[in-house]
Amino acid sequence: MSSVTVHAPATIANLVCGFDVLGLALNDPYDVMKLSISETPGIRIQHNDVYNLPTIPEQNVAGVSLLEMMQELDSHYGFDLVIEKHIKPGSGLGSSAASAAGVVVAANHLLGNIFSKEDLVRFAMAGEKLASGVKHADNISPGIYGGITLIRSIFPLDIVSLTAPPMYVAVVHPQIEVKTSDAREILRKEVLLKDAIKQWGNIAGLVAGFMKNDYGLISRSLEDVIIEPVRSMLIPGFDDVKKKSVDAGALGGGISGSGPSIFMLCEEKNTALKVEKIMKDIYDNTGLKYHTYVTTINNEGIKVEVNNH
Amino acid sequence: MSSVTVHAPATIANLVCGFDVLGLALNDPYDVMKLSISETPGIRIQHNDVYNLPTIPEQNVAGVSLLEMMQELDSHYGFDLVIEKHIKPGSGLGSSAASAAGVVVAANHLLGNIFSKEDLVRFAMAGEKLASGVKHADNISPGIYGGITLIRSIFPLDIVSLTAPPMYVAVVHPQIEVKTSDAREILRKEVLLKDAIKQWGNIAGLVAGFMKNDYGLISRSLEDVIIEPVRSMLIPGFDDVKKKSVDAGALGGGISGSGPSIFMLCEEKNTALKVEKIMKDIYDNTGLKYHTYVTTINNEGIKVEVNNH
Repeated sequence: MSSVTVHAPATIANLVCGFDVLGLALNDPYDVMKLSISETPGIRIQHNDVYNLPTIPEQNVAGVSLLEMMQELDSHYGFDLVIEKHIKPGSGLGSSAASAAGVVVAANHLLGNIFSKEDLVRFAMAGEKLASGVKHADNISPGIYGGITLIRSIFPLDIVSLTAPPMYVAVVHPQIEVKTSDAREILRKEVLLKDAIKQWGNIAGLVAGFMKNDYGLISRSLEDVIIEPVRSMLIPGFDDVKKKSVDAGALGGGISGSGPSIFMLCEEKNTALKVEKIMKDIYDNTGLKYHTYVTTINNEGIKVEVNNH
Repeated sequence: MSSVTVHAPATIANLVCGFDVLGLALNDPYDVMKLSISETPGIRIQHNDVYNLPTIPEQNVAGVSLLEMMQELDSHYGFDLVIEKHIKPGSGLGSSAASAAGVVVAANHLLGNIFSKEDLVRFAMAGEKLASGVKHADNISPGIYGGITLIRSIFPLDIVSLTAPPMYVAVVHPQIEVKTSDAREILRKEVLLKDAIKQWGNIAGLVAGFMKNDYGLISRSLEDVIIEPVRSMLIPGFDDVKKKSVDAGALGGGISGSGPSIFMLCEEKNTALKVEKIMKDIYDNTGLKYHTYVTTINNEGIKVEVNNH
């Protein structure tokens, strides 16, 4: 029986002005998933963590992603999956995407890499659909491709890898519950054309800033006039974290995915550490539980290790 | 008396999915403007063309741009300007921007290049305001910077030069009148969030495609779900030109500025010539007067020649 262990990283969707189209993979935190392939049909899932997630394949994000892949296989393999989640569900750091993307990358490796990265995104989107009711790829793609990805279009799928200069990322996860579905519900279905123009000027600037390694342009482009003003109201401390982080030298940042985590991009590690301190001070004062990370962009994406027996 | 002659090129604003933020300079057509500096105060304008444009400085696009610049000069120079327009006013090819940008580039050269490109855009925006009632920079900037420019923000001004692979541009100007103010009037003030998301996915893709020299991505990103469906109704033959051009191998294209000109980007010169033939056939059938151009991206922008006396 061959098996692999993958590290499936946390991801930040939206990246401020790129609602529903941009995503970035982090080096920390990450889920650890061990997948074994065998002749015994069926999928068996075990969760070695505290989150009490369903283990019936049809109800498990990783399970349905694997089932989606298996529909395109001729042979009838079986899989044993052990998941050790470190990315807290509901954190806004792509916890479900890590499960969905991690398992299909692992399975593809065991099958001799017969599927393309785009295929893998397609399979993992079944997991995202189970988790949030919507097929979206902005957390899955950076996990599978690494670095920063643009989902130009979801039907048909069009994924673009973007280069970017080295950056440090400070993240705080204040432990309140924000459901993705609620966070979507409060958005207006229509937006002002003038706001939309501002937003597409900013995303164009952000993409150009990434590709030109222009930190100043990245910083100026990290502005969201459409989603953040609405969603940030669900996150206590948001305005304070953002203002003080930028004052301390962060390039900018905002809500990770649909929240409640907040991230700040920084050019220097020192700045990221200062920002982390700011985050801690703010949430210490609120009495809310929280967790912080200082990490970097994960350009490799999901890491696969072959297990020797 | 020293004088310069500048070639101020036509420009294409919007570039399909970049409404109000993207622009591109063409090598053809261009206006020829001769500017002389003297000790005799005042601005004297002469139009050597058929368009019967005002020559009183305060009513002339080039005149007000020059006046705007002169407000920031200590010395009281005078200027004599002769304009030979080849970019037809109202064509949607940045005719007013060429006058506005051309004169300030010429004057700056005569003054020893004391102003930055950004300053020049600022001055020329006064001309655009006279022409269209709105300060916009998406036609001025590519003229002054050359190539393709992004106006990430207009207040404060933030102009970004984008690299792009070589492309041919086929343009048709069907000679109907579309006023910029009318073309703005018919746009809805609100747009669907889902359409806005599509649009910012496309502009992000277009910018990435330009910078990665990825013709396929450029082609897939040349889609406008917000402005074109409304404005194209003002341009007879639009759908036909677009469909047949893409079928003939054009990367894509759309309305130039607020129209009525239509442009198509092509990877190969041969394709651009085929597209031009398609454009001619379509407008020959309508009986409308038209003019076509097959040209390339003007990476240099406004060209300055010093006149020897």
